Parts: sequence; C-alpha cells; structure tokens
Amino acid sequence: MPVTRSLSVSPALPIGLFDSGIGGLTVLRAISHRLPQEKLLYLGDTARLPYGTKSRDTIIRYTLKAAQKLVDEGIKMLVIACNTATSAALPTLREHFFPLPVLGVVEPGAQAAVAATRNRCIAVIATEATITDGAYQQAITRLCPQATVLGRACSLFVPMAEEGWIDGPLAEGAAHRYLDDIFTPAVTAPRPDTLVLGCTHFPLFKKVLQRVIGPQVHIVDSAETTALAVDGELQRLNLLRPADAAEEPAPRFMTTDNQQRFVRTASLFLGRTLHHGEVELVNL
Amino acid sequence: MPVTRSLSVSPALPIGLFDSGIGGLTVLRAISHRLPQEKLLYLGDTARLPYGTKSRDTIIRYTLKAAQKLVDEGIKMLVIACNTATSAALPTLREHFFPLPVLGVVEPGAQAAVAATRNRCIAVIATEATITDGAYQQAITRLCPQATVLGRACSLFVPMAEEGWIDGPLAEGAAHRYLDDIFTPAVTAPRPDTLVLGCTHFPLFKKVLQRVIGPQVHIVDSAETTALAVDGELQRLNLLRPADAAEEPAPRFMTTDNQQRFVRTASLFLGRTLHHGEVELVNL
Repeated sequence: MPVTRSLSVSPALPIGLFDSGIGGLTVLRAISHRLPQEKLLYLGDTARLPYGTKSRDTIIRYTLKAAQKLVDEGIKMLVIACNTATSAALPTLREHFFPLPVLGVVEPGAQAAVAATRNRCIAVIATEATITDGAYQQAITRLCPQATVLGRACSLFVPMAEEGWIDGPLAEGAAHRYLDDIFTPAVTAPRPDTLVLGCTHFPLFKKVLQRVIGPQVHIVDSAETTALAVDGELQRLNLLRPADAAEEPAPRFMTTDNQQRFVRTASLFLGRTLHHGEVELVNL
Repeated sequence: MPVTRSLSVSPALPIGLFDSGIGGLTVLRAISHRLPQEKLLYLGDTARLPYGTKSRDTIIRYTLKAAQKLVDEGIKMLVIACNTATSAALPTLREHFFPLPVLGVVEPGAQAAVAATRNRCIAVIATEATITDGAYQQAITRLCPQATVLGRACSLFVPMAEEGWIDGPLAEGAAHRYLDDIFTPAVTAPRPDTLVLGCTHFPLFKKVLQRVIGPQVHIVDSAETTALAVDGELQRLNLLRPADAAEEPAPRFMTTDNQQRFVRTASLFLGRTLHHGEVELVNL
C-alpha cells in the first residue's frame, strides 16, 4: 500500500531555502523572479562552509540541522539550494521531514540536460564532492541510460565567484583550464552539446563559459531549472500563494556566521544591494 | 610577583602543530627541515575549514577544541600553524594551556619583516580574517611604531594552492590583480620593500610573487620564520630532542575529515607523496 502524504500547511507560509553559504542565492533569485508573490526564507550555513570538500556523513549531519531550523520557523516547502547537500542528503531529508515536500537542485538540472541534448553527450561541472558523489551522472543516466556524462570538478569557481572575479582574463583562463580537454573533440568520444552548471555559484560564470565552450553548446542553469520545478510542485500540491498586487514580500535571510561578509558577497549573487539589517545571525 | 612557569615535559615528546587544513604543512616542512630529529604531530581541522572567512569567536572555539586534542595526545610545544587561528586565538590558547609553550606564526613573521625592511614600508598578504583582524599590522607597529603597513586580503590564493595552480598565467594574473596597486609607487606613500606571506598557503606562490613584485622586494616566509622561532624556544627551554643518527622520526598526521583529499593536497605542500595509511581520521 503506498504511503499517503497528508500535508496540511498553509500556502501563505514561506518556501525555505538552504545552502551551505551564499551560492543558493542564485536559486532564490530565480524563484523570486518566477514566483514574485512567494515568501522566501533563506538559511546560509556560512559558519561551516564549504560543504564541497567535506565527507558525505558530515554533509548529511550539517544539512539535517540546518533544515530543522527552517522547519521550526514554519515553511511549506524545503529547497536544498546546494548541489553538494542535495547529492549527499536529499533522500535522508525527504524521509526525515516527510510529508513536507523537499526539492533538490540535481534532479531538475538532470531533466533539463536530458531534454536539451541531441548527441546524448553531457558535461557536468560542480564541486569536488558533487562530482565524486556522482549524483548528476546517476540522475542523468537514470533518465537516459545511453547518455555519456563527463564530470569535472571546478573547485576554484566558488571562491572566484565570491571574490567577484566572474569575468575577465582570470575567469576565462580558469574556464579554459577546466574545460578545454572535455570540449576538444576526440576520436573516442563526441564533444558534449550540453553543459550542466552543477553548482549554485556557477550561473555567475555563464557568459564566460559560453564564450569558452562556444555558442552552440546548451548551458543548463540549475538555478533556473529548480525555480521551474518549485513552481510545478507548488501547483501540483495546490500550495501557490495567491498573488497579491499590493505586496511582493521581501525575502528573509539567516546566516550562521559573519553577517558582514554575507551582506557583501550576497549582493553579487542577488544583483541588488543587501543591507545589514536584512540578515539575521542564527546559531544551529 | 611574576607567575613562574613550571613545565615538566620530556624533550622526547612531539611538537604539536595545528592548522585549519593543510596550509600548516608548509610550517611542518620548514620545522622538519630545520629540526629533523624532532617528532611532529599535525592536526588539520579539515571538517571546518576554512577559518579565514569565519568570525573571531567561532575561530577561538574551534581552535581550543583542536588544541586540546593535541595536548591530550601528549606534546611538549604547541605551534598554531595557521595565521587566522593565531591572530584570533593565540592569547586565549596561551592562557588556557599555560605553562605549555604556545607559538603562533604572526610574531615571527612580524619580527623578520621589521628586521628586513629599510624604508619601513611593509606589505602583508593574508586571508580576509587575518587582514581584518589587523594582527600583523599590530605586531609590526608594536616592534616598529614608525612602520607603514599595507594589508591586502588575497582569499583566492588558498584554493588556488590546493588546486595546485601555483605557477603559470593564472597564478601570475591573480598576483597582479591583488598586488599591482600596492607596489605601484605613489606620491603619498613609498613602495613597500618587504612583503610578508601572512598565510601558510602562500609560500607556494613565492616564485610567482617575486616575479610580479620584482627581485628587489624582500619576501618574508612565515613558515621559515616560525621554524626559526620554534628552534629558539626549544633551545631556551632546554627541550630539543637529542639528535639520534639512527632515527629521523616520521611525522604523524591527523585530520577531521576527508583523508583522501588531505593525502592528495598534502603532497603538494610537503613536496613528497603522502600515503593514505599515514593519515588518521579523528573526531573533535
């Protein structure tokens, strides 16, 4: 007998977003662009970032704690806006917080990649943990068993994004160093026609990446695909907050450490200036 | 009445080294080069790195816990082989573990800089936390009140070192981006004649940095100056381990997370291959 989901939450509650730091703000931005009437509550676990170089068990432990904080605040949906946390902890979170809907960033990206590719050769760039974990590789081949998936850890893009070095010769040089061999056609394998940005920091490099790999390669931005999945899931569960012309609620931000740094770097990701008073310091 | 130090430890015990990750291995390497007869016990708190972007209170809490682990293992001296932890936590550690001798990396670097400079204009590069904290600036002006100290956070050098990008156009481009304005002579300030590498990762960039700032600038490598200070302090306390031609003890390594990554990146810092069996996983 299938387990029945008995979820009784109000559509007025916010969507909770969790990330190890600030990268998830690209997801928040995409959701707020697509669903401006939704309340958003963001928690960045900056005290313990980056998750990308930590072990699976550690990531699961940290993510559970952070998610519990969001659930305690009252949310109608949990979005793991962090590829590393999604690939390590999503099944555990779904089980733990059942029947709360829990969405990750991997599945939507994998679906978009499979939908976009024509030659079934897909490249994925992400942090070391996400690539080692093989989450995208698995999600893509589950949807398309004939696909060839080439994964590449691009660890340096995260700190480069936070430093604001998202364009210019250094970003371009790093992109070449990470990607040239993958996008050089070989006798043994086709050249990927699709590139998945498997880390929430990476949408900031979209322009540079497109320049380096060429305009014919389709780039899947997992922030945008996740926003699309959130929209669909809220519709399915009849949990969309009614649009109210009088109000477009401002998101709430919580961080576990160093508000100042959060405010400074967040502005880069949000595309608008964030103020100190908008960010609350919490202890997990 | 001055407090008397009554320290009764055996010279045969190891020197304990602590770092938030693997950067401190440059200090270990310098110590083992200078004092090959000493036993060395290294703890890298990789589960919670980087400290460089965390707040002072968090850094103190983490450092105390890690130092306690080393003290429990039995050591004759504690070296905080991490600039961020030194600048945030050294006084607290000295008080907490008194009368155990506790050395940091900031003071030796400041002394060497003051000894080297002729025009009393000194540049310091470090992580954001070390620069914001002002530890070098204070240590240098305490020794030489007339000194002008220019601090610059070079956050990206840490992940670049761990990625092995320590030479070539990207490292050089980053060095230019961080340093050009400091080393361009201005009307208002002299050009620094001394550069302090205020982060244990940075000795790996010594060649590139020397190329970018010119051969006439003196570079202070805080790993080497710390090894010198350790040597002096052990002599002063009569705690040098007697040289034994038959044995040059291998260091012991402990890490709080991800042994594999530790082994891989550590090799870059140690200048030799480290094996998986040499690294112990510990829980703090």
